[in-house]
Amino acid sequence: MVRLAKLVIDPTQLESYKAILKEEIEASVRIEPGVLTLYAVSEKEKPSHITILEIYANTDAYKSHLQTPHFIKYKTGTKDMVKSLELAETVPLVPGMKIK
Amino acid sequence: MVRLAKLVIDPTQLESYKAILKEEIEASVRIEPGVLTLYAVSEKEKPSHITILEIYANTDAYKSHLQTPHFIKYKTGTKDMVKSLELAETVPLVPGMKIK
Repeated sequence: MVRLAKLVIDPTQLESYKAILKEEIEASVRIEPGVLTLYAVSEKEKPSHITILEIYANTDAYKSHLQTPHFIKYKTGTKDMVKSLELAETVPLVPGMKIK
Repeated sequence: MVRLAKLVIDPTQLESYKAILKEEIEASVRIEPGVLTLYAVSEKEKPSHITILEIYANTDAYKSHLQTPHFIKYKTGTKDMVKSLELAETVPLVPGMKIK
């Protein structure tokens, strides 16, 4: 299960948002075997535009992720910081691709 | 060096485009140590919208990539298939993040 999350963050809260997201990503990847990556980037020319490449082992791993304390903390802690969120389900061109 | 390439492909040439891109990605990752990943996805609801998370070890690795026969073959072979291309330089939130 491979997804792109495309977010626009309130610029006045961007640093707080990034700190909370970073904590959530590090916990997810460390604790959850089924969270294969959460690769988040901020665009240099539009720093409040955040894209996350999310890869889960399967749908169950994703559903389980949604119920973790670290995800719930992130979701509730950032709800007033996120101006827009688009979740795009995707198909990877080369399944099994890694990062060296 | 971490970048997002956002492409829109001519729908009538999408399968040809994906085959050429896949060949280019597999060659780049196999042959070039400085190409750390080229993670390409097609959106399920908008299949002609392709996003590539490109990670290079450094600027030299990227410049070298542009001169490889497989990149040049891709670029020339797909130039009439690509309707738009946006290259966004980015800052990764968690440097060193991998895919399990």
